[in-house]
Amino acid sequence: MRFARFDLGGHPRYGLIEGDRILPISGSPFEPWRRDGADIALDQARLLIPVVPSNFYAVGMNYASHIRERARGLGIAPELPSRAEPGYRSPSALVAHEDEIVLPPDTTSVQFEGELVVVIGRRAKHVREADALKYVLGYTIGNDVSERKWQKIDRTFWRCKNSDTFKPMGPWIETDVALESLRTRVRVNGAQHIEFPTNDMLFGVARFIATISEYCTLHPGDVIWMGTEGASCDLHAGDIVEVEISTIGTLRNAVVAASRNIHERIPV
Amino acid sequence: MRFARFDLGGHPRYGLIEGDRILPISGSPFEPWRRDGADIALDQARLLIPVVPSNFYAVGMNYASHIRERARGLGIAPELPSRAEPGYRSPSALVAHEDEIVLPPDTTSVQFEGELVVVIGRRAKHVREADALKYVLGYTIGNDVSERKWQKIDRTFWRCKNSDTFKPMGPWIETDVALESLRTRVRVNGAQHIEFPTNDMLFGVARFIATISEYCTLHPGDVIWMGTEGASCDLHAGDIVEVEISTIGTLRNAVVAASRNIHERIPV
Repeated sequence: MRFARFDLGGHPRYGLIEGDRILPISGSPFEPWRRDGADIALDQARLLIPVVPSNFYAVGMNYASHIRERARGLGIAPELPSRAEPGYRSPSALVAHEDEIVLPPDTTSVQFEGELVVVIGRRAKHVREADALKYVLGYTIGNDVSERKWQKIDRTFWRCKNSDTFKPMGPWIETDVALESLRTRVRVNGAQHIEFPTNDMLFGVARFIATISEYCTLHPGDVIWMGTEGASCDLHAGDIVEVEISTIGTLRNAVVAASRNIHERIPV
Repeated sequence: MRFARFDLGGHPRYGLIEGDRILPISGSPFEPWRRDGADIALDQARLLIPVVPSNFYAVGMNYASHIRERARGLGIAPELPSRAEPGYRSPSALVAHEDEIVLPPDTTSVQFEGELVVVIGRRAKHVREADALKYVLGYTIGNDVSERKWQKIDRTFWRCKNSDTFKPMGPWIETDVALESLRTRVRVNGAQHIEFPTNDMLFGVARFIATISEYCTLHPGDVIWMGTEGASCDLHAGDIVEVEISTIGTLRNAVVAASRNIHERIPV
């Protein structure tokens, strides 16, 4: 099944996607639900981020080639992690499928990172790795947009990874996924930059759920971004960046420059 | 004014604290509100965390003596940051005033860190430092409980700072605060371990709000934990730890050992 979250008259609603229609449901897929309301055309709907996570986990170093590429960019020796260790991102940076990625005025190198996103479906604590996938509602797609200058010079990842609009996520949650057969492809303006087996991770989805849940309770709607593979490239205003994961869908976002008026402020 | 969030018949409610009473209000202090319902005795109420933040910022290195102490603990040279840079914590670790801090079974050194917590009241983007405090609803208190072994050996702060119950926050939000005159005191079992001028920060509240808001929109209810000063000490099961900030209040939590049965799992 595919669950989309979409705007209906200014309010967020969940619905099932069937073909080119959205069939609205009551409540959310994280609780008992039923069909509720008239279906609408998918191409008429404005999709929202498929979940607003309370806790936003992200794995930084989970694919061998990406670790070597990042080490090269930072001028350091690559080191593969020996354990599953998550980091965090901030929900304030999330935007939906077809929303714009806004380049801040003082950026020099903003790059894509196409990622599988795990959406937790049920409360999980002290979960065995063998049981861990039962706590997953489904999967969506993330673009872990990153500013490489700040990633190099800042002490934390706050702005390099969490500037407004730097975390596109969507288009929807797919519940029926065979992790082993997934392939991730990233395209910029239609040209493919990278293709890799999505599940070719150092530590997989089940391992991360089991590890996190030994110490931190996972809650319905929490997300775990599973990291990316290989090298990336700079994005520029006017680009269209697409992250496709087979059988899940394609997350597409346009890149735009920030308005010149960076000192436009909200009235006090 | 003091806004408390408390449990009323299983539902969270906000109220004003006046003397030893809570005067319930409609909605929340982040929107227009009015008095709503009969007042109740403060000592009969179970206080909840005063806000559930969507975005949870935390400043790691913001007091000179604490930076020297942490460097000593890690066996590295102390380095004062030259810029305001926030990190993140995860809301899953939050517990309220009078809730228990649970020591995981495999911990060796769990310590307190008493912190001022800024509660954002209004959406903020591109805010000038001179205007920044106008976006603050008020202040509460945090205990940035930290496991020092994991802080040393893990690649990220996920479990050393974000294990379940490691982020006590409360007891309430105080809106009338003179930052310059605040003093923070931390007591364990009634004995004071540290006292410091709360505002003796390398980078103050206004600077952090202005800096964050250049890149990341701050939202009502977001919190910024402002860091701690000096050295800490190990907590043990049976301890009572109190963080007092003058004119705001006292955050008090008991420390308990995790149940022996760490493999108790939620049924699948």
